[in-house]
Amino acid sequence: MNLAMVRYLIGWMLGVESLFLLLPTLTAILYREHVVLAYLGAAAICMAISALCCHKKPTNSRFYAREGFVTVALCWIVLALTGALPFLFSGEIPSVVDALFETISGFTTTGATILSDVEALSHASLLWRSLTHWVGGMGVLVFMLIVLPLAGGQTIHLMRAESPGPSVSKMSPHMRDTAFILYAIYFGMTVLQIILLLLGGMAFFDAVCTAMATAGTGGFGIWNDSIAHYDSYYLQGVISVFMILFGVNFSAYYLVLSRRFRDALRIEEIRLYLGVILGFALLIAFNVRDMFGSFFESFHHALFQVASIITTTGFATVDFNQWPAFSKSLLVLLMFIGACAGSTGGGIKCSRIVLMFKSIKKEMQYLIHPRAVRVNKMDGRRVQHEVMRSVNVFLIAYLLIFVVSILLVSLTCEDMVTSFTAVATTLNNVGPGLELVGPTANFGFFTPLSKIVLMFDMLAGRLEVFPMLLLFTPATWRREK
Amino acid sequence: MNLAMVRYLIGWMLGVESLFLLLPTLTAILYREHVVLAYLGAAAICMAISALCCHKKPTNSRFYAREGFVTVALCWIVLALTGALPFLFSGEIPSVVDALFETISGFTTTGATILSDVEALSHASLLWRSLTHWVGGMGVLVFMLIVLPLAGGQTIHLMRAESPGPSVSKMSPHMRDTAFILYAIYFGMTVLQIILLLLGGMAFFDAVCTAMATAGTGGFGIWNDSIAHYDSYYLQGVISVFMILFGVNFSAYYLVLSRRFRDALRIEEIRLYLGVILGFALLIAFNVRDMFGSFFESFHHALFQVASIITTTGFATVDFNQWPAFSKSLLVLLMFIGACAGSTGGGIKCSRIVLMFKSIKKEMQYLIHPRAVRVNKMDGRRVQHEVMRSVNVFLIAYLLIFVVSILLVSLTCEDMVTSFTAVATTLNNVGPGLELVGPTANFGFFTPLSKIVLMFDMLAGRLEVFPMLLLFTPATWRREK
Repeated sequence: MNLAMVRYLIGWMLGVESLFLLLPTLTAILYREHVVLAYLGAAAICMAISALCCHKKPTNSRFYAREGFVTVALCWIVLALTGALPFLFSGEIPSVVDALFETISGFTTTGATILSDVEALSHASLLWRSLTHWVGGMGVLVFMLIVLPLAGGQTIHLMRAESPGPSVSKMSPHMRDTAFILYAIYFGMTVLQIILLLLGGMAFFDAVCTAMATAGTGGFGIWNDSIAHYDSYYLQGVISVFMILFGVNFSAYYLVLSRRFRDALRIEEIRLYLGVILGFALLIAFNVRDMFGSFFESFHHALFQVASIITTTGFATVDFNQWPAFSKSLLVLLMFIGACAGSTGGGIKCSRIVLMFKSIKKEMQYLIHPRAVRVNKMDGRRVQHEVMRSVNVFLIAYLLIFVVSILLVSLTCEDMVTSFTAVATTLNNVGPGLELVGPTANFGFFTPLSKIVLMFDMLAGRLEVFPMLLLFTPATWRREK
Repeated sequence: MNLAMVRYLIGWMLGVESLFLLLPTLTAILYREHVVLAYLGAAAICMAISALCCHKKPTNSRFYAREGFVTVALCWIVLALTGALPFLFSGEIPSVVDALFETISGFTTTGATILSDVEALSHASLLWRSLTHWVGGMGVLVFMLIVLPLAGGQTIHLMRAESPGPSVSKMSPHMRDTAFILYAIYFGMTVLQIILLLLGGMAFFDAVCTAMATAGTGGFGIWNDSIAHYDSYYLQGVISVFMILFGVNFSAYYLVLSRRFRDALRIEEIRLYLGVILGFALLIAFNVRDMFGSFFESFHHALFQVASIITTTGFATVDFNQWPAFSKSLLVLLMFIGACAGSTGGGIKCSRIVLMFKSIKKEMQYLIHPRAVRVNKMDGRRVQHEVMRSVNVFLIAYLLIFVVSILLVSLTCEDMVTSFTAVATTLNNVGPGLELVGPTANFGFFTPLSKIVLMFDMLAGRLEVFPMLLLFTPATWRREK
């Protein structure tokens, strides 16, 4: 393990974080809020540690897959530890466990909160929560790759460990350019959403926070009643559409920008994703028809909730915990499906679901005609055996973490639907669950043990299981022979 | 599709069934019950259809994998349809859907009942319910293979489709001998259990029914309070031990009988199986300690419930629905783990769980050292790539059926824990679930749609998903080019 290089990269990451912390600092100054020193202090601490870690570039630049996984896992833990400092310094979240929970929920774009009254927070903290979504969505290390010149092997291993989905799409032979393109599209779309929200009459601060939380598919609201606060079909509709857009594989946007429209349309995962959104929204709209004044209103809220859950954002316009069991079951299923690979969303990801369906189809054909040779294809290309295997092992490891987490949470939580959906919503980075963790409730009542389990789940979900598992495996730390 | 051969085999199976139906007929005569004509009539109908199907042996004996799957799936459906006749004829279960549910629950060794008062049934019907467990446990087609001389290709395809687990263990080069050995061990152990129960003072009729339900890991009780009726540590203990024994891979018994003790001890799946039983029983015993008078009593009931659920039998000595959430979660997890492959139990099976753990371990080693070549081994032998793939695809197809079933059941059932555990307990062939389908409740209240879904799940669980899926796939029925 090349620890010097790991330390160096964590140092750079902290430098980037200290820059991001200046934004809430400026907000605090603008709104003349007392929390200005808390944010300035946190930024200073990050900068100081960064300087300590980076003052000497490591001579040994050997960097393999395991260094990549360890760096990413440790970076995200350090990110959470330092990102929680302003909440503690300002006293807005006095408990260490709660402050960590809120920060991890932010960076992992989960959006589950331990706060019962978010409106009591300062503007600076509201912005910081939304900003953690934005940075966490596309990835802080992906951002770092734009500014930090690294060797090719280092970049690819970091990208692989941080980016969601079974494989990394290369938009350019240079990973640094890929990272730049990704963030450029991301930034452009966020700005576009801010403009459209402003046109609908939303206040500037609200528009910025909401757009950042949408872009990262995070889900922290700045009002206690989440998006129901903006009682306007236009505003809720814009947020619906942008949630769906940010759940699309970003390589599709790159193809569209490169005028390869046909290739963009051929992406099977996006077809499944859009089909599931439309189908589930219609099913729910019919199921909850009686709860609203018109079918249009029913469909509007069904679509918003479906888009919010499948993209793992977690915004809400209604309390869907009051919906019938069929609709609730559909929403829980959507938590697991998740958004497209290579988007900012969480969950199992549509591309894996596509591959799973294909493997069932292939197995049945094999059982009918054992001697026929068949090949799994996706988007017109042959699926490598490696990819198929990694999808299967991902599913198994994911289920394992899921089951163990539910057992640990149920030690101190007597409601089984709460335990199940609390784990489902954190492991898939969604935000709200059902019953005691429904859209109008919060995670504050959990015991510290449960909160730690759910924090692990949020990180495991965002980093797709293996970086977190490897961090706690002795073999990772063993010296090579 | 060689339909003539499929018809011929179904005919033979009905012949076997008509013989089995004579046992409850005799019971009815012995107890002078009015249901004697109902059982005699059902036996006559089976015999008549059997004669029609078998009067001419098909000339074309071509029989491939798909014929095997279709035969097994259809056999089990015909078995359910004809097995339900006595309940309908006697009027003891007047509804067609309910009678089918009870019969499928019997043959698939699930043990979920729609009856609120089983004690109202005749002795003949109680015996028939237990007998369906016994026949269904080891497999009616496996039984048929002993009496019917078939070509090698036919037998292996039938065994593969009906036997549980990722692969069929051959105890003899001739599948007919294997089938005979399996049933001989099965019969011997059942008789042993009957003797031990009689020694504990159980009535003869009770001992026969209980032993058959234990052997098939079925779970139909003949008293409304299940095994709690026999308020004796000895009797409950004997049943605990035999449930565990019938959940063991039968090839282990064959190895023991062949004096290959070391090979029997090397079977990894059995180690996991016994380890899980002990570990979970201890965890639950501590968790429910306060509900019982002593730790011994607490452990006794914990062990009974753990053995009952992991072997997917479904007997109960207490109402575990009243236990704390942690214990209930552990029991639900056990439903999914299930017994060993090649036993009479259901669930995912311990051997698949072992292989899943191994694949996670291998993937982590691969991520740490991408160039090292590693091989999955089980019981000291290399695991074929085919087996690994079939385990993965099984898991995916199993999850798919699980999710779709929950959605369909939740259409008319508002309690989510009930829907979830009702599907879990039927797909894994356990019997009781939680809440409205807890150990003291029954499945009578479900709508016909839900009952049909749960019947499909019981069959899919018993036949390990693919025969049922293939039956409804157009490609299975397409003519070969």
